[in-house]
Amino acid sequence: MAPALDERVRVGILGCGNVGTALVQLIHDNADVLQERAGVRIEVAKVVVRDLGRDRGLPLPAATFTTDAAAVVHDPDVDIVVEVMGGIEPARTLIADALAAGKPVVTANKELVATHGREVFEAAQRAGVDILFEASVGGGIPLIRPLRESLAGDRIKRVTGIVNGTTNYILTKMTDEGASFADALREAQRLGFAEADPTADVEGFDAAAKVAIIASIAFGAQVVASDVYREGITGITASDIESAADLGYVVKLLAVAEESDGQVAVRVHPAMVPERHPLAAVRDSFNAVFIEGEAVGELMLYGRGAGGGPTASAVLGDLVDAAKNVAEGRKGATIGTLVARPIRAVDDIESQYYLELEVADQPGVLAAIATKFGEHRVSIRSMQQRDVGDEARLIFVTHTARESDLRATVAALGNVDEVHRVGSVLRVVGED
Amino acid sequence: MAPALDERVRVGILGCGNVGTALVQLIHDNADVLQERAGVRIEVAKVVVRDLGRDRGLPLPAATFTTDAAAVVHDPDVDIVVEVMGGIEPARTLIADALAAGKPVVTANKELVATHGREVFEAAQRAGVDILFEASVGGGIPLIRPLRESLAGDRIKRVTGIVNGTTNYILTKMTDEGASFADALREAQRLGFAEADPTADVEGFDAAAKVAIIASIAFGAQVVASDVYREGITGITASDIESAADLGYVVKLLAVAEESDGQVAVRVHPAMVPERHPLAAVRDSFNAVFIEGEAVGELMLYGRGAGGGPTASAVLGDLVDAAKNVAEGRKGATIGTLVARPIRAVDDIESQYYLELEVADQPGVLAAIATKFGEHRVSIRSMQQRDVGDEARLIFVTHTARESDLRATVAALGNVDEVHRVGSVLRVVGED
Repeated sequence: MAPALDERVRVGILGCGNVGTALVQLIHDNADVLQERAGVRIEVAKVVVRDLGRDRGLPLPAATFTTDAAAVVHDPDVDIVVEVMGGIEPARTLIADALAAGKPVVTANKELVATHGREVFEAAQRAGVDILFEASVGGGIPLIRPLRESLAGDRIKRVTGIVNGTTNYILTKMTDEGASFADALREAQRLGFAEADPTADVEGFDAAAKVAIIASIAFGAQVVASDVYREGITGITASDIESAADLGYVVKLLAVAEESDGQVAVRVHPAMVPERHPLAAVRDSFNAVFIEGEAVGELMLYGRGAGGGPTASAVLGDLVDAAKNVAEGRKGATIGTLVARPIRAVDDIESQYYLELEVADQPGVLAAIATKFGEHRVSIRSMQQRDVGDEARLIFVTHTARESDLRATVAALGNVDEVHRVGSVLRVVGED
Repeated sequence: MAPALDERVRVGILGCGNVGTALVQLIHDNADVLQERAGVRIEVAKVVVRDLGRDRGLPLPAATFTTDAAAVVHDPDVDIVVEVMGGIEPARTLIADALAAGKPVVTANKELVATHGREVFEAAQRAGVDILFEASVGGGIPLIRPLRESLAGDRIKRVTGIVNGTTNYILTKMTDEGASFADALREAQRLGFAEADPTADVEGFDAAAKVAIIASIAFGAQVVASDVYREGITGITASDIESAADLGYVVKLLAVAEESDGQVAVRVHPAMVPERHPLAAVRDSFNAVFIEGEAVGELMLYGRGAGGGPTASAVLGDLVDAAKNVAEGRKGATIGTLVARPIRAVDDIESQYYLELEVADQPGVLAAIATKFGEHRVSIRSMQQRDVGDEARLIFVTHTARESDLRATVAALGNVDEVHRVGSVLRVVGED
C-alpha cells in the first residue's frame, strides 16, 4: 500500500518532562534509523509544555512548543498523539478526543490505563486506531507487546513482577548492608530514587496500578488498581531480611496476577523469594516480570522500570508501530473488550507463609503451637528454633495454605499463653 | 478491512516432530483464544510427516497428514506455511517456493536463517508477506519481536546471550556439584539435554548460529554463522570454575554481538561473569539474552531456549501475527535489506581476561611476569597467589585489553623460565 501522507507522520507530544524531553531527543538523534524502520519520516509537529519560557535545549523550532494541549489534539497537522504528561485529567479527556478524531494514541500513563483502561481501549476500538502503552508498565522493558503478541497463542497462568524500582532499591540496600527501612529510604530519597512523600511507592500503590494493567492484558479481564490487594514494605525489618537470608530467601515487593477457575487474583505484597529464583537476582532499582505460561513455561523480562531514556525508548517503539500503520493506512492494533471477571478475595488466595513467633522457652510449647496450625489446616514445612535470652524464637515456613486459614492460625496463636508475640508474617513465593 | 478469507486462515505445517506436535495440540486446545486474538479462525489444513503410519494422537483427521511437502506449499488451500522440520534442504527450497507463491512463512529454523537469512528475507520482501522466525533463537523467549519492534526507536550497542541450554546445564552442574566436564556431559546426555554427539552444543556451533541471527536483526547487518568467532567449553575444568567462584565469578558460555565504529563483532566463548550480573543467575538449561541499548539501558529476556512447548508457543505467536495480516489483506512485516558490514577480527576485540600461571615459588618471578604484561600493553587489575607445593599459582585479572595484545602476552609468558605453565585463559565479561 502506498504511504497515505507524503511519507511523513506528524506527532503531537503532550508533556515535556523527563520522558518527553528524552523522546524528542531520541527522535532527532535516530531520525535515519527511524525512517528506515517505520518506512516513513517521524516528525515532531507540536510539543505541549507548561512553561513556554523555559529553554529545554531541544532541537526544535520555538513554534513547535505550545501550552494548548486541546489545540494539538485537534490540529489537522497532527497525525499521532503521544501522551507523556501523566495523571488522570486532562490526559483522559485529551486521549478520548484524539481517539474520537481518529488519531492513534501512544501513552506512558500508568495511572490512566490502570483506572480507565477499558474506556480508553473501547474508544480506540471504535476508531479503529492504535492504542499503545508499553511504557505504562516496566519502563523500557518490553512487556505489553510480548503479552499481546508473542504469547498470543499461549495461556498465561501467572505473572509475578518486581515493578517498583524505589522499593526494590530500598530492599536491596537493606539486604546488602543490613540497613533499616528508614535508613534505606533516606538514602533512596537522597539519590532521587524515592520521592519526598514516598507513600505511592512504599505502600505499593504504584505497583498495584501496574499489576492491574498486567492482569488486564494477560487475562483480557477488566482489572483496575482498586481491585488489587495491597501491602507495602514499611513493616519489613532488618531482622526479617536476616531471617530470610538464613533460610535462603530474599525479600522482594512482588506484584502478582494470576488466573484460575475463571477468577483473577491480583495483589501486591512483600514476599520471601528463594535465592536461586531469577527474581531474587533483580537488584537495585531494576524491574522484572516473571511470566508462567502453559506452553512457554517460565519467562522473565528484566530492565529499567523508570527513567527518561528507558521510558522514551518504549514510547518510541510504540510510535514506530503507530506510524507504520498510519503511513500504510492500516487499522491499528486494538485490545479486545476487557471482560468483567470475578476478582478473587484475598482470603481465598493460597500461598506458603513464613511466621516468626516469640515463645516461652519451656517444654510443651511446640506441641501447643503445632495443634493450632493443625486445627486450621495449615501444614508446617519447616521449623527452626533460636534461643533469645530466656525466650525462644520459632521460625516456621508452611506448606501452601489458604490465606483465611493462615489468618485464623495467627489469631489463634495470639491466644496461646506461651506465645509472647507473633512477629512477622510473610508470604513465600516461587518455591518449587 | 473485511477478512479476505471467510474468517479462517489455513495453515500448512512442514514437519511434525516435538515442535510440530506441540503446535498442532496448542492450536487445538486454544482455538477460542486464538480466534479472538487473530480475529480469524486458524485451521490446520495439512501437516507434513515422514511416516504416515505413525499415530501421533493428534486431534486431526488422517487426511490432514501427508508426506508431500512440495504439494502442501503449492496447495491453494494453504494460506500460511509453518516450517518446523529444520535443516537446510529441503526447508530452503520449500520456504522459497512458499514466499514466491505469496504465502507468509513462519519458521523455527535456526540453521537456515543463520546461513541464508538474507536470501529468505529478500524473498519475503519481494512478495510483501511476513517472514517470522521468533522460535529460531531462544525457543520461547520473545527476542526477535522486541529487537524488531519494541527497540525500533533505540540503538542497540551489544547483545550478550546464554543461548545454548545444554552447555548452560553442564556448566551449572560443574558449578553446583564440582563435577568435571566429562561427568556433567554424561549426566546431561542421560537426561536428554545433550545429544549422543554433543559437538554442535559443546563446541559452540549452535550458539554461533543463534548469535548470527541476533546480530543480523539487532544491527540490520548481514552476519552468517561462519562469521562468528567460536570457542567451546570442552577445555573448562572444575578448577577453573572453582577459581572463578573464589573471585566472585560464574563461568558461562556467552554469545556476544556488538557494533562499534561501523563494524560488527560476533563471538561465542566461555567467560567469567560477575556473580551479581543478571546472566549469572541463569541456571540449568535456561537461556537469556542481555541487551544494552543506548536509551533503554540494560534489558534481559529469560526463558526456555528449547523444547516442544516453548518453541511451539513462539511459533504460534508468529502465526497469529501472520494470520491477522492475511485476514485483513495487509502486507507482512518484512526485514529491511541486511547490509554487508565489516566483521571485526577477533584480534581487534577488547575484553578483560583471567589468566592462571604456574610459576616457580622464588623471588623476582612476579617482576619478570609483570614486565611481560607491561611490554604488551596489558594492564593488571588484580593478582592472587596460591601456594601449591613448591610452586605458586598466580591468578591475574586484567583491565580491558586487545585480544592480540593478550595473546602476545601469553606467548611471551610461555618463554619466561620461571613460568612452568600458562593455565586457563578466560575472558571476563560484564564487569563494571
